[in-house]
Amino acid sequence: MRHWSFAKGHGTGNDFIVLLDREAMMQVGEPEVRFLCDRHRGIGGDGLLRAMLARHVQDWDGDPHLWFMDYRNADGSVAEMCGNGLRVFVRYLLQHDLATGPVVQVATRAGPKEATVLPDGRIRVAMGPVTVTDRGVRVRTVDGAEFAALTADIGNPHAVSFADDLTGLPLHTTPSWSPSAVFPAGVNMEFAAIRGQRTVAMRVFERGVGETLSCGTGTVAVAAAARLHTGDSADLPVTYRVETPGGRVDVELAADQSFLTGPAVIVAHGDVVLPEEG
Amino acid sequence: MRHWSFAKGHGTGNDFIVLLDREAMMQVGEPEVRFLCDRHRGIGGDGLLRAMLARHVQDWDGDPHLWFMDYRNADGSVAEMCGNGLRVFVRYLLQHDLATGPVVQVATRAGPKEATVLPDGRIRVAMGPVTVTDRGVRVRTVDGAEFAALTADIGNPHAVSFADDLTGLPLHTTPSWSPSAVFPAGVNMEFAAIRGQRTVAMRVFERGVGETLSCGTGTVAVAAAARLHTGDSADLPVTYRVETPGGRVDVELAADQSFLTGPAVIVAHGDVVLPEEG
Repeated sequence: MRHWSFAKGHGTGNDFIVLLDREAMMQVGEPEVRFLCDRHRGIGGDGLLRAMLARHVQDWDGDPHLWFMDYRNADGSVAEMCGNGLRVFVRYLLQHDLATGPVVQVATRAGPKEATVLPDGRIRVAMGPVTVTDRGVRVRTVDGAEFAALTADIGNPHAVSFADDLTGLPLHTTPSWSPSAVFPAGVNMEFAAIRGQRTVAMRVFERGVGETLSCGTGTVAVAAAARLHTGDSADLPVTYRVETPGGRVDVELAADQSFLTGPAVIVAHGDVVLPEEG
Repeated sequence: MRHWSFAKGHGTGNDFIVLLDREAMMQVGEPEVRFLCDRHRGIGGDGLLRAMLARHVQDWDGDPHLWFMDYRNADGSVAEMCGNGLRVFVRYLLQHDLATGPVVQVATRAGPKEATVLPDGRIRVAMGPVTVTDRGVRVRTVDGAEFAALTADIGNPHAVSFADDLTGLPLHTTPSWSPSAVFPAGVNMEFAAIRGQRTVAMRVFERGVGETLSCGTGTVAVAAAARLHTGDSADLPVTYRVETPGGRVDVELAADQSFLTGPAVIVAHGDVVLPEEG
């Protein structure tokens, strides 16, 4: 039987299992990730964050002493980056004296990322540039309702639809989109409602996961799409407040960069027994 | 800050947080239960099981040295009994040398309950008598499909419908029933399909919870309803195999008693930090 130590944390309700594996000794395959993220038979999480030194990462040509965030989706698939996950990851490193703040560099599959702990305890992470275009995409929920969606790219693809009523949207089933060729590898879908000046409420259906309480890149995509949607002509940088079902974050849109600021908390530490067949 | 030790376990995917509180010293109120059972911001579980000595339970007039299963639903409300929870509770007691098997007596709000660990590791618990009647109830799912339902009582009320195809049933939304006066306090709804001789597959929509992977009393209700539905005239006791989305259990129907046999596993142990306002 394998016993693994883990931590569990979340940022605005987007929750993660954290594994410390400095020298990349653990066999963390798809079955292990699926088990740990299983909310009923395992611990439960939207994803898993494995902390390992960057020198163990093939093809990493940056600073080998950085901590690498090996991020996996709950279904076991590998993902490049996760804004909420990065905050939780940095909180974990700081609480365990594995890094010193307030500025922490983290290696990710999307390159090195910088996080800053603000005086109020929230963590601000650079999310990279975001581009928004109107590619004539239409999103359709299971009840047949159809939405015109803006396309946002922030390392991963997003389709942002604006809706008047978010409450009634049936997001228990994957919405479809057309033309399907626009997103051959799938897409994260956000549904957003303007609540005030630079204030947007949203729900999100994450690719490979389902509806979640929050999605870091999704909040940036929504802020950038809302700026285009509302014809916001103010000079950059501008800050949008984005309200997800899991809590509020601030998104700063700059010329060639975006920043996500939000809470992150480590809730529990423990030991888990992996099943024999795992 | 309060740090609590916890365990997490499940029986056929019905999962629980377990707290050891021998002398009933912990303040476990509704906010604490809701936090611990919160799958995103806490640990996550369908319910919480607090282990305390029965002598600390007001109005308990049985053996004061028994372990009392203080069972709470995920929403913080107090519940009497839970068949899957009792198995997890007994597994916890045995693994921590707090009880000796194979027969373990547990105090519950529904009185003393006996559990037996079988040689194959599964745990068998007495669930009390079950009665099934046909009260002309009809159940209707959100897509408009209608089912004739048998009524089962096993301390709590159940409406068991038989369907050919369980996979496509839309159980993300509460089904309705008529006449509504039959279940003034709501009802647990099972959908069952006969798979072979005394073998039944089922899905369950739990009152106040939604669809779950399994429900202990629901499996007993389904076995008893299947016996009536199939005209099974064999003398009691008879054993039904019930396949829930979370796994298989066996239900023995005897003259004035029923027994539920199934797996139970403790998956993790840990320490959790309760939020300040908790």
